[in-house]
Amino acid sequence: MGENQVTELGTAAPPNAAPPDAPGPRDRASIRRTNLSAVMGLLRDSGPRSRAQIAADTGLPKPTVTSLVAELVTLGLVREGPAQREGAVGRPGTLVHLDGDAICGIGVEISTSYVHVLALALDGTQVYAHRVPLAVKEEGPDATLDVTARHVADCLTALDREGRRPAGLTLALPGVIDMASATVTYAPGIGWRDVAVADALRTRVGRAAAGTLPPIAVDNDAKLAALAEYAQIRGSGVRDMLCITGERGIGAGIVNDGRLLRGADGFAGEVGHMPLDPHRNPCVCGRHGCWETMVGLDAILRLAAGGSDPIHDPGLALEDRLADLRGRAEAGDPRTVEALDRVAHDLGLGLALLTDVLNPRVVVLGGYFTHIGDRFLDRVRETVRARVMAPLAGGCEVRLSELGFVAAAYGGAHLALDAVYQRPALS
Amino acid sequence: MGENQVTELGTAAPPNAAPPDAPGPRDRASIRRTNLSAVMGLLRDSGPRSRAQIAADTGLPKPTVTSLVAELVTLGLVREGPAQREGAVGRPGTLVHLDGDAICGIGVEISTSYVHVLALALDGTQVYAHRVPLAVKEEGPDATLDVTARHVADCLTALDREGRRPAGLTLALPGVIDMASATVTYAPGIGWRDVAVADALRTRVGRAAAGTLPPIAVDNDAKLAALAEYAQIRGSGVRDMLCITGERGIGAGIVNDGRLLRGADGFAGEVGHMPLDPHRNPCVCGRHGCWETMVGLDAILRLAAGGSDPIHDPGLALEDRLADLRGRAEAGDPRTVEALDRVAHDLGLGLALLTDVLNPRVVVLGGYFTHIGDRFLDRVRETVRARVMAPLAGGCEVRLSELGFVAAAYGGAHLALDAVYQRPALS
Repeated sequence: MGENQVTELGTAAPPNAAPPDAPGPRDRASIRRTNLSAVMGLLRDSGPRSRAQIAADTGLPKPTVTSLVAELVTLGLVREGPAQREGAVGRPGTLVHLDGDAICGIGVEISTSYVHVLALALDGTQVYAHRVPLAVKEEGPDATLDVTARHVADCLTALDREGRRPAGLTLALPGVIDMASATVTYAPGIGWRDVAVADALRTRVGRAAAGTLPPIAVDNDAKLAALAEYAQIRGSGVRDMLCITGERGIGAGIVNDGRLLRGADGFAGEVGHMPLDPHRNPCVCGRHGCWETMVGLDAILRLAAGGSDPIHDPGLALEDRLADLRGRAEAGDPRTVEALDRVAHDLGLGLALLTDVLNPRVVVLGGYFTHIGDRFLDRVRETVRARVMAPLAGGCEVRLSELGFVAAAYGGAHLALDAVYQRPALS
Repeated sequence: MGENQVTELGTAAPPNAAPPDAPGPRDRASIRRTNLSAVMGLLRDSGPRSRAQIAADTGLPKPTVTSLVAELVTLGLVREGPAQREGAVGRPGTLVHLDGDAICGIGVEISTSYVHVLALALDGTQVYAHRVPLAVKEEGPDATLDVTARHVADCLTALDREGRRPAGLTLALPGVIDMASATVTYAPGIGWRDVAVADALRTRVGRAAAGTLPPIAVDNDAKLAALAEYAQIRGSGVRDMLCITGERGIGAGIVNDGRLLRGADGFAGEVGHMPLDPHRNPCVCGRHGCWETMVGLDAILRLAAGGSDPIHDPGLALEDRLADLRGRAEAGDPRTVEALDRVAHDLGLGLALLTDVLNPRVVVLGGYFTHIGDRFLDRVRETVRARVMAPLAGGCEVRLSELGFVAAAYGGAHLALDAVYQRPALS
């Protein structure tokens, strides 16, 4: 996708405006497409409303809105129904709603320790979810993709049975992704290099699936998590967000002025290997003092307990190990408290750097931080406030994700649905 | 300006598309405005062309183009004239050109060691330039603004004499800028804090100027330098650029997908204080190991020569001191060679970090790097290639600016002209 890949987030495209990935002359067909997209985006971001209201909100003439809504009904993307007004008097008006039943998006995350498959309906409701623990690095790409394909096939079968049609599937992986070839170029956390994951998954699922196999895209897990987090705060007026995902590695998804920042070739957001202290620990990448050696999951566990401690047992669910760590912190265990303190400082250090570079309004801490971050959030905020050059930390608010480990899969499903919102007539 | 400040660069807005800072319903007037802007942008980016060609390039109907061009002629922004075709046969066609004579933009840079005032005509031609050396930190805000106001008044008088009308003036400063209040919040390199520079300049110039005083904006020097650098490569297909300005401090201007990245409150690009090595030198900001203590102007001079060396003499022009440094490097002076080597490595280290975060296609090194950078560019590139996580350094090319120290003032003038391109009818 490279230079032309733009992911606009959270706001309806203005009517009559071309989507930013389609430069060139504007004709009637493209204006129609853009207006269909604008109506869809409005219903998603601002909820059900009457045709008159849609006309008022978009500035489009009422007859145009009537014709657009009729087309969207035919496409199975919206339906018209009575307003549900509790206790209201008088005749209820007819509202246009998103039709969540027919179309869905699938998100699949291959993480260091699990595979997660989920589907979201057009209105964002979760309609399928399944997660299996898996030691992905140890299993290797072939076995992991075998397992993933089985679970995707199960998902497709279930969706088919319910009459839901998947618009697309996005695979989330913790590494550098070449989106054009749908390849994982380098994912040190799971030990993968140059794996053409979309092709591999397509071949495997093709044999097993009952339903239709939708288009498969691949994206970086932290970028997809940022999409999901941004969907959570849609409509709040925030346009600049930094989402940090803490797992074995540390990834970032950057939203700048309402758009996912991908960079020239989609490689942006690689923050895990920021060299913050050349005198510190060696990293999986072969260098020293990378940020993820200071604040990644392995770092906090290693700081908090010796090697034989059950907290390091990969056979236990990660959530349980983090709950254990949390319990120790609450009980005041000195080594745990010191570990959290150290990680909080180093997390704040890197966040301050990124806040200086990007000036986000909101920093969301996701992944493992969701499970333990409230124990050190104040310390993190303090470090950020103390270090950022702009006054009052550039107005930046650091908060914890409410999605946690499921964010990447959620974001994958959102991205698949995004194609429907961008080009409703092609769905 | 805050959340709504968007600087679109280098490409004509697509016809019928609203400028991104004007959400809401599209009406005839806004479509007309957008189309005027599209024609202006096309002429700037792609050169003079016939009305038929404009219609073909924008997808607008020919009668619409005729009417748009007529309005732009009335506004004094374009003129129609014969094509200059050397050796061509047949009747020359009529081309629409930008009219560079009537309207210009003014850029004023207050740097650590000089004040620079310049004006660019609508087509980017420099029509005024004057630079005076000034020890800004030592002089302090009041005296510096007095000097600046005198030179701005001289510029306005000269432009007025030539019948040129300034559309705006942008003041470039090396620090954190609150654009909404046109205030320098914090500029450690020149020791300014909370100086309302636009108001101060307006008051001072108001007394002295012959011509009309245009609107005054304030922006960060590195961001404006990035605007100027991006204008240089306009049309080359590059949409993601990082511009690093090396002076006493180190600043960055980031272009993401053709737009200047400002962040939530315009504070983005503060890269000088990235904490790259806590064990290294103290910084003006009070901490240790900030990037600018490793690669800023003071760092390279200190590494290259002892305190009594004339290279440190602020009474000499900076260019001459850098030429001296360069001569020593060419002569193989071991201390100078080692200093350059050290700075090259540390520059590469920070660039690799920023390339991982932003994935730019091009990194431009401006400011003092322009004068000495060719002596270490290979080493910088090597470090970046070795450290960036994405394959082949994410496709990133590191090059030297051709503008050097004048880039910020150039960018200021470009930004002032940008208002004319965005809203031709208001100029």
